[in-house]
Amino acid sequence: MDPITELLAEVLEEIRPRDAGAPADYIPELASADPDLLAFSVVGPRGRVRSVGDDHAEFTIQSISKPFVLALALAEKGRDAVLGRVGAEPSGEPFNAISLEPVTGRPANPMINAGAIATSALIPGDDVDDRTARIVDMLSAFAGRSLWVDEAVYASESLTGERNRALAHLLKSHAVIDGPVDVAVETYFRQCSLLVTVRDLAVMAATLAFGGVNPVTGRRVVDERVARDVLSIMSSCGMYDYSGEWLLRVGLPAKSGVSGGLMAVAPSQFGVAAFSPRLDTHGNSVRAVALVEEASERFGMHLLEPHESVASPALSLHGDDTARVVRLGGELGYAGAERIVAILRDVAGGLPEDVPVTVDARELGRTHPGALVALRSEFEDLPNWIWLSE
Amino acid sequence: MDPITELLAEVLEEIRPRDAGAPADYIPELASADPDLLAFSVVGPRGRVRSVGDDHAEFTIQSISKPFVLALALAEKGRDAVLGRVGAEPSGEPFNAISLEPVTGRPANPMINAGAIATSALIPGDDVDDRTARIVDMLSAFAGRSLWVDEAVYASESLTGERNRALAHLLKSHAVIDGPVDVAVETYFRQCSLLVTVRDLAVMAATLAFGGVNPVTGRRVVDERVARDVLSIMSSCGMYDYSGEWLLRVGLPAKSGVSGGLMAVAPSQFGVAAFSPRLDTHGNSVRAVALVEEASERFGMHLLEPHESVASPALSLHGDDTARVVRLGGELGYAGAERIVAILRDVAGGLPEDVPVTVDARELGRTHPGALVALRSEFEDLPNWIWLSE
Amino acid sequence: MDPITELLAEVLEEIRPRDAGAPADYIPELASADPDLLAFSVVGPRGRVRSVGDDHAEFTIQSISKPFVLALALAEKGRDAVLGRVGAEPSGEPFNAISLEPVTGRPANPMINAGAIATSALIPGDDVDDRTARIVDMLSAFAGRSLWVDEAVYASESLTGERNRALAHLLKSHAVIDGPVDVAVETYFRQCSLLVTVRDLAVMAATLAFGGVNPVTGRRVVDERVARDVLSIMSSCGMYDYSGEWLLRVGLPAKSGVSGGLMAVAPSQFGVAAFSPRLDTHGNSVRAVALVEEASERFGMHLLEPHESVASPALSLHGDDTARVVRLGGELGYAGAERIVAILRDVAGGLPEDVPVTVDARELGRTHPGALVALRSEFEDLPNWIWLSE
Amino acid sequence: MDPITELLAEVLEEIRPRDAGAPADYIPELASADPDLLAFSVVGPRGRVRSVGDDHAEFTIQSISKPFVLALALAEKGRDAVLGRVGAEPSGEPFNAISLEPVTGRPANPMINAGAIATSALIPGDDVDDRTARIVDMLSAFAGRSLWVDEAVYASESLTGERNRALAHLLKSHAVIDGPVDVAVETYFRQCSLLVTVRDLAVMAATLAFGGVNPVTGRRVVDERVARDVLSIMSSCGMYDYSGEWLLRVGLPAKSGVSGGLMAVAPSQFGVAAFSPRLDTHGNSVRAVALVEEASERFGMHLLEPHESVASPALSLHGDDTARVVRLGGELGYAGAERIVAILRDVAGGLPEDVPVTVDARELGRTHPGALVALRSEFEDLPNWIWLSE
Repeated sequence: MDPITELLAEVLEEIRPRDAGAPADYIPELASADPDLLAFSVVGPRGRVRSVGDDHAEFTIQSISKPFVLALALAEKGRDAVLGRVGAEPSGEPFNAISLEPVTGRPANPMINAGAIATSALIPGDDVDDRTARIVDMLSAFAGRSLWVDEAVYASESLTGERNRALAHLLKSHAVIDGPVDVAVETYFRQCSLLVTVRDLAVMAATLAFGGVNPVTGRRVVDERVARDVLSIMSSCGMYDYSGEWLLRVGLPAKSGVSGGLMAVAPSQFGVAAFSPRLDTHGNSVRAVALVEEASERFGMHLLEPHESVASPALSLHGDDTARVVRLGGELGYAGAERIVAILRDVAGGLPEDVPVTVDARELGRTHPGALVALRSEFEDLPNWIWLSE
Repeated sequence: MDPITELLAEVLEEIRPRDAGAPADYIPELASADPDLLAFSVVGPRGRVRSVGDDHAEFTIQSISKPFVLALALAEKGRDAVLGRVGAEPSGEPFNAISLEPVTGRPANPMINAGAIATSALIPGDDVDDRTARIVDMLSAFAGRSLWVDEAVYASESLTGERNRALAHLLKSHAVIDGPVDVAVETYFRQCSLLVTVRDLAVMAATLAFGGVNPVTGRRVVDERVARDVLSIMSSCGMYDYSGEWLLRVGLPAKSGVSGGLMAVAPSQFGVAAFSPRLDTHGNSVRAVALVEEASERFGMHLLEPHESVASPALSLHGDDTARVVRLGGELGYAGAERIVAILRDVAGGLPEDVPVTVDARELGRTHPGALVALRSEFEDLPNWIWLSE
Repeated sequence: MDPITELLAEVLEEIRPRDAGAPADYIPELASADPDLLAFSVVGPRGRVRSVGDDHAEFTIQSISKPFVLALALAEKGRDAVLGRVGAEPSGEPFNAISLEPVTGRPANPMINAGAIATSALIPGDDVDDRTARIVDMLSAFAGRSLWVDEAVYASESLTGERNRALAHLLKSHAVIDGPVDVAVETYFRQCSLLVTVRDLAVMAATLAFGGVNPVTGRRVVDERVARDVLSIMSSCGMYDYSGEWLLRVGLPAKSGVSGGLMAVAPSQFGVAAFSPRLDTHGNSVRAVALVEEASERFGMHLLEPHESVASPALSLHGDDTARVVRLGGELGYAGAERIVAILRDVAGGLPEDVPVTVDARELGRTHPGALVALRSEFEDLPNWIWLSE
Repeated sequence: MDPITELLAEVLEEIRPRDAGAPADYIPELASADPDLLAFSVVGPRGRVRSVGDDHAEFTIQSISKPFVLALALAEKGRDAVLGRVGAEPSGEPFNAISLEPVTGRPANPMINAGAIATSALIPGDDVDDRTARIVDMLSAFAGRSLWVDEAVYASESLTGERNRALAHLLKSHAVIDGPVDVAVETYFRQCSLLVTVRDLAVMAATLAFGGVNPVTGRRVVDERVARDVLSIMSSCGMYDYSGEWLLRVGLPAKSGVSGGLMAVAPSQFGVAAFSPRLDTHGNSVRAVALVEEASERFGMHLLEPHESVASPALSLHGDDTARVVRLGGELGYAGAERIVAILRDVAGGLPEDVPVTVDARELGRTHPGALVALRSEFEDLPNWIWLSE
């Protein structure tokens, strides 16, 4: 067992004894879930999936489908069209709150049920099956394997889903959804009934973490801007009326589901997922929340933790007083450019004017083009400076 | 003019023609502001203050004082004590909404007026002057210079501040504030009446961006965790009922004030501030919002933009087949450790077993201790590997 | 033309020039109503129907059906069963507000749409036709003639009624309605589409005014307690978020409909109705409101106007010093008994002890039995008093 | 003991055993009330005060002062001026709800605290003492004796009244109150601290019941229209968020207070009051509510009970075939006129044309002038009819 997996296992055992909360009970299929199931998984930048506990237990994805269907809607329709039908504001209200804007009838955001139904209704398709197929394809691409609908759960959701049906009719009354109400609602029930494991959720989270590229399959699923938009909305609205405190304590865009799953994203670092069926009063899994909170603390993943590297690209100096080579590495943004300028000024100041200086930027990774121009412009009138870049 | 300042000036001129909105008019001092004033400033990691436009125009800080007084309260009382009196949830409501929790009377968050008054009331002190002095000291430390109260604005705020007085009495009725209501409210009015320039705000923002260290004075103002907490709450609640859409579009923790100021934080990269008195219906400065939005786009500062460097510490290979040296640089977290493990495995695989490999980690910057342990543990049973670290 | 009809005509012409407001436009059938139509009708205790203006114009009853379907539900199920499904509190909100109680999901009252749908769903019946038939029978009994559904309006209501459908699904989700949602909603749309004239509405109102007996047909439609309950709820909730001000200004239980009808009840005095299609922002007919308000003022119908007669039964003295006869008439309640006791004491005091006094109560109308006992008990020990009662 | 007092005593003993609820505890003076105190009183049209139980126990009037201060404001300023500052709509919310209209800041109605403070602030006066004096004078006139402030309760109310102070500052911020906030609030605290007995409250209620004339002192306290307006607002808003159900079940304009008092008005019949300190969750006295509810049922006082007499003035026929005298008595409104017309037509039809008929209307009590004109006009062309009226 590698050190990261060991750490996951350690956290898992620490959290395991907690037994507060109860599984969701609005449909028999959720109420009968084994409340002791517990699983935790992390996927890093190279696509290695680490998991501990009941990591092969399947459960329905429920509300965790919302960010991925949002990704599909953004990819298909564009941000403006999506925002025309659903807002991006936290409502400070529970998942099943009505929360429609007074005049337009736009739901507050795509993470509450009303907004998720509005989002789902944006997916093109002739009928429920056609729309569901597109959604399943998208979520399968995020997961890196084909996902399946649990038909028994779907049937129960459909049988008891009067509140969601009500929300859909309200949306229809405001012309927020276009087609038949039934198609919108049944598609939504099917997307919620997709079966996943904690490992699937971690891979799906990682795909958002790495700008839309699934780190396991290497396939680009959505473009970087779509991934960024989804993460933004998860940050402000993903944990319902606990979103603000979650961002304060844990600092990760996240989404929970009523079957006990929880997915969190440490951008550019990790996809994280946890699973345990017992829920708290916000509808979030008690132990999954604790697992992710603990992991965020131990792994230092809080989004608002300062990251020195963002402003500090690597730089190494080579050569001697007759010829200098400065090698740049890592990522270069504006803040990093400012740091490098200061160091290069030191270099320049300590050398006779005619000593040639080569700045080798060919090993730079992700580079902001303006930042590189800004960096070069500071030295471009020095005749003996040579810039190497691709 | 350096390239970054040039870029600021370019953006400034692009935004200048917009003339929508109007200055706040609830007190004469704000209503009489010159609506054409326009300024923009950015402070980077080395404390260089760049600014364009009316960068020496003074205005009252108003609601932008809220995150800094929150920082003081967190520093003085600790997070739990502060959260006992004020929540961390966006309310989806305007700045002057009442938004108290039903039973406890806790205001939704410290960025709305009710929450800011509750926060201000946590600052110790015998009377208004004593409390104000502590607040002024803290904000001055953030700004790197002594700030002053505009007494005329303070007098007007106090004269007309019936709604804030009402909020304070409500808080008192719920025992959310302890001392006399008048002391709480007058202290709050004084903190709102501090005079700043756009350059001050950019330095203050930068102090939050760099983990609580003022990059101009080099002085630590608050500890890193306090800065992180403040940024978390600014992210979810800083722009009132536009907070979600702001996070989506601009992606920076930010705070606006009714006098037309706006401060945004790109963690580890920049403090940013803009100023223009004309406000939109959310109470945010029309042109200041546009300046920061444009800058975020051009400088690539969105918080949820993937940053490769976070997961990619710099690494350089030296030596030959008889002896290898691997130099690590930049920042090392878990995700970075995973990347380095993969590269080191390649190195190890390509060398005869007895060739000594020296891994020089002494140049690593900010390093997660667990990540370094995890990294070393992968290779510690290889007898010919030597680890150099501080 | 009799004096009351003359007065109605005079008021009608006074109000006619007002042209504020516009007909409802959510379905074409209402939008195309002739906005100049104007009618007014009053029905008194002997069933004489007086009317002026376009008193034969038919329009759909819309929300004015609500109190009559409530009467049917009360008659069929009893007050407790009805209150188990719908409250009796004004919500201070518009007609289409959601206004469900937090936990039970009970709509606030039967006069808003959600409550009316819940009430309609209590009517027994196998299907939409069966339920509609019972409702039509009841409303026809109130009107004293067979009413018909306007099928074109019904079809339009059904086509566009997404908000009402949403309300019904919400009610279903709280188990406030039992059967299929579609049956509940379509029955409700049909009840709203019944065609009436202003004369019908005045007769229906009069049937409520006279304790459930239709004064035209002489037939008891519902019992007195049902009529009282319906009037109570109309008093507090009948004019939506204008109910309180209406009770203040006009002082009559009333109900308005979106097609421009308005019905008001002066208990024991009159049924009143008015019709004019142009609506104000509360959804009440501008001119119908003005007609009823003016009539209430001129006819002295305000419910909280003091009515001396309530406390003053008629009493006449006959005979001379050798034998006295006291004849009682009118209505006798406790307050009246108190007045009569005082007068009879005067009579007793002014007569020699052995003069016989006959109190003839046989002409008393509606008499509270306890009040008569209380009255007699004051004099029962006087040997020369004789009581005649039926 | 007279029969009505016996009935009161019987009801009192029936209700006495109920021990649910608890006295208000927000100030020590209320918390220490003897929870077993129980009293009941009724005042009829001739001013006889009947009472049973602890009818001399004094308690502070609290919210029951609201309708009387409203009466004073209406008398001093007129209805329009009062409605400019406070609405007349039930809010469906508890007594201490904020319930201000969005833009104007008008409180929903004068029976909730915010509205009562706004109403109290309309009373002219130089300072708290001056305004309080006017209020005490008015309430004393309603009670028929000089009332006194309980200074200990006042001091406690003032000490703990932060929520009411908050409401007053909110009102000030909307310019709903004009003078200093402190004067408004302290005046309000003093009006709530007036000491009354259950007998006082019954007399005060009776003064409203009989159109503004105190039936004990015979003094007119306010004019009839003011009394009607106050009763209208009590009907829709007097019992907070139980007002609608109260009107349904009990059918009397009423007002309750937190010290356990309850006052109800049966217009033209009775003033009723009850007292018992234990409160339910709406803040209404458990046993006082039960007493009044039971009394309304037994005495037949429900406002929407049909009252035949309203439409049936007394009429007696005298004389023979050579000369007829018709004597009218009781009250004459339009509905009564219609009934009499029918009877007179019978009389006219049964007599030879030349027999003189004298209609003696001199004994009519309260008469609607239009109704008498309408009545006469039916017969004025008959040459042998003689009308006698004052």
